[in-house]
Amino acid sequence: MAATDPIRLTDDDARALALRLIRDARFGALGVLDPASGAPVVTRIAVGTTPDGQPLTLVSALAAHTTALRADPRCSLLLGEPGDRGDPLTHPRITLACRAMFTDRASPDHARLRTHYLASHPKAQLYIDFSDFSFATLRIEAAALNGGFGKAFRLTTGDLGL
Amino acid sequence: MAATDPIRLTDDDARALALRLIRDARFGALGVLDPASGAPVVTRIAVGTTPDGQPLTLVSALAAHTTALRADPRCSLLLGEPGDRGDPLTHPRITLACRAMFTDRASPDHARLRTHYLASHPKAQLYIDFSDFSFATLRIEAAALNGGFGKAFRLTTGDLGL
Repeated sequence: MAATDPIRLTDDDARALALRLIRDARFGALGVLDPASGAPVVTRIAVGTTPDGQPLTLVSALAAHTTALRADPRCSLLLGEPGDRGDPLTHPRITLACRAMFTDRASPDHARLRTHYLASHPKAQLYIDFSDFSFATLRIEAAALNGGFGKAFRLTTGDLGL
Repeated sequence: MAATDPIRLTDDDARALALRLIRDARFGALGVLDPASGAPVVTRIAVGTTPDGQPLTLVSALAAHTTALRADPRCSLLLGEPGDRGDPLTHPRITLACRAMFTDRASPDHARLRTHYLASHPKAQLYIDFSDFSFATLRIEAAALNGGFGKAFRLTTGDLGL
């Protein structure tokens, strides 16, 4: 094992890449804790942003990850999908340590998030008004950016302007 | 909230789709537990299979997910990447509940896994013999298949022939 620290000093390029990955995400891999066992569970979720740039998702009460987030709001969100281009392990991605905050469907905040979300996810129109769907803001607490092999950074909410 | 159970009865089509997603995966999203906090952490990893069809990954001791798996082997693996085609939320994917088992680099098993892995991941030749890299088999304990909106199944190891 090499004795080197694999984490580089955060610079403006790293901050800009992190913000772009969060802003451009349309979906991601969400990690939650299984309420019964405490084991991690990863599922695919749709991802947008709140007007102030926090990750936002629209989840069904029927989904196991929703039950899990209501029991323990600590979660992890992996963004930065490689698509069909190039090597997935050199494609930039970011792991966000988040805390989920649900928005009541009857609140003014829900209407505001609904408008913002539909602009990036127009297909959500099909189910956004189903009574079992609600918004969860995945408020970022810290981030680990991987800009490709050997290019790792740790970012704070300050680095992300949040 | 609808009172319906969203899980369908597992059938042969579901079993075949699950096996295909596991066999064809070249990378995936791994969820582990942070050793300090117990919070979930999701990262992208390269994924192949063992000769008998269990998910296999090659990880560096420098990576946080390796430290985490050595502290608690319970993990979750999301496979089934949408690439650039279609809606990521209707694209089939599977969440595997796994237990990580590391293989000692000096063992005959390592040599066997090395040959098998390089057949699917030829670029790994560049680092597979670095002393900080080792194989972890992510032995499947249960699976949740999502074949698209409203098509959810729970699978056992028996369904997967494992």
